[in-house]
Amino acid sequence: MSRPSAEEGSKILQAARAGDRRALAKFLSWLEQSPLNQVFALAELYQPPQLAFRLGITGPPGAGKSTLVGRLIERFSQQSLKVGVIAVDPSSPFSQGAILGDRIRYSEHSLDPNVFIRSLGSRGSLGGLSHSAYLMARAFDACGFDLLLIETVGVGQTELDILHVADQVCVVLVPESGDSIQAMKAGLMEIADIFVVNKADRPGADGLAREIEASLQDGGGKKPKVFKCIANQGQGVDELARHILELRDQIRIQRETPVRLRHEAKALLRGEWERDLDSKLNVVVDINSFKALFS
Amino acid sequence: MSRPSAEEGSKILQAARAGDRRALAKFLSWLEQSPLNQVFALAELYQPPQLAFRLGITGPPGAGKSTLVGRLIERFSQQSLKVGVIAVDPSSPFSQGAILGDRIRYSEHSLDPNVFIRSLGSRGSLGGLSHSAYLMARAFDACGFDLLLIETVGVGQTELDILHVADQVCVVLVPESGDSIQAMKAGLMEIADIFVVNKADRPGADGLAREIEASLQDGGGKKPKVFKCIANQGQGVDELARHILELRDQIRIQRETPVRLRHEAKALLRGEWERDLDSKLNVVVDINSFKALFS
Repeated sequence: MSRPSAEEGSKILQAARAGDRRALAKFLSWLEQSPLNQVFALAELYQPPQLAFRLGITGPPGAGKSTLVGRLIERFSQQSLKVGVIAVDPSSPFSQGAILGDRIRYSEHSLDPNVFIRSLGSRGSLGGLSHSAYLMARAFDACGFDLLLIETVGVGQTELDILHVADQVCVVLVPESGDSIQAMKAGLMEIADIFVVNKADRPGADGLAREIEASLQDGGGKKPKVFKCIANQGQGVDELARHILELRDQIRIQRETPVRLRHEAKALLRGEWERDLDSKLNVVVDINSFKALFS
Repeated sequence: MSRPSAEEGSKILQAARAGDRRALAKFLSWLEQSPLNQVFALAELYQPPQLAFRLGITGPPGAGKSTLVGRLIERFSQQSLKVGVIAVDPSSPFSQGAILGDRIRYSEHSLDPNVFIRSLGSRGSLGGLSHSAYLMARAFDACGFDLLLIETVGVGQTELDILHVADQVCVVLVPESGDSIQAMKAGLMEIADIFVVNKADRPGADGLAREIEASLQDGGGKKPKVFKCIANQGQGVDELARHILELRDQIRIQRETPVRLRHEAKALLRGEWERDLDSKLNVVVDINSFKALFS
């Protein structure tokens, strides 16, 4: 398999930094395909002139995360902010591949020069964010983006990785989620910096907002804000967008603490490991070739 | 860190095969700690004289899986069958470690010479069954067990690994699970060979059983049986135990198909990778030591 060279990567990145959007698309693909030693040869990638504020947007399937992201993009773009989006889709062991349906609604922004959207199957076979998500987030820094929205589905413990790649996390819930919220709450409550009760015109919205507020009383430290939105009508989105920009101004982005770097390193090492795995496993056809793997 | 030698492992396994239960406990620990090339040096482990029938028992938290396992152990032991249990506990990224509460109820069997129980934190940091579960299951084969029950919590896609280690899978549900069942159903319905509606004296039990039966109409191929049980009163357990033994007699255990061997190899390789990971990550304190990992 012929892989793109480091030199090629460096050239593409330069074009992407100069504002060439097709080059950026190409560079993100280069990042996915290249061995990590080549990626790290690009000094610009890990010493960017500025850092994009990374907002993780997570919550159960059907909470309206994609719609909300679409509305936020509009608001930020109107203020001439450069906004990137990484949309991470779940992949099931039975269906494989990314579910792309939801992505279609982003297409109205595809001509907006301030907006760049990338869909990413969570291709890591072991759950959690794939190493590509970490690398791509770095690329948005390097290309001078102001904001990066990272949309993930918050379903299992391994999905809580968003905590380690985002600077702040917005958890989107809907009144109907009921039991499924209960199940996820332990994890999601702890990682949220912002709560959005979406589809707030439906019954139970006020109750859910109160319930969240009440549960926040017990927590120490940070005090997340709770917003009510009707994303598909654009209601409540202005307030939310304003709050996000406030957070961005307040927060000192600390991306290189040992804890965060270790999480990133782990994801990247896992990516390398998984890349090698398939070819290793392909030779296993019987107990002898199986044992030979470990000798 | 001094690790036990292959020679030591071989001696302990011999004693375990001769029926020494303390040696078996010791051997399982040896498996967890030893490098895989030493494990594979033990020919007996992967060429056992007989195979224990592996029944995976999975379902949502609170479905009563542990209670059911306890009852099944009683039935099988009364028939002088040698029964092993591997109880895999969930570990959360926030709490870490195994939740051992449920395991206590097994202790009444701890003096039964036909029964051997091992608790196992799902220590794989990436979800799914840890490599230890695969190795330990092999040990129960090697030591001449008739049956092995593997209890796991079926919550995420990565937890569906049970499919690849067990010969047949029993999914335990309770009437109240409601939404959470809906969420899991797609995955669990596909892997089940047996359904148990537990706590069948509660409202909604008949409805749930009918709902399962109805959804099975669509599926091709295998036709799982649905049982209603009240495990804590022992009701319905005899019928279930009988069915399990019937399955055991009917099924030709095929453990060495390429697909199964690849899943096992993947879990074992992952185990090796994770073992090395911590020491690698410990050196990461800043961006330079981070980059050095990939050069």
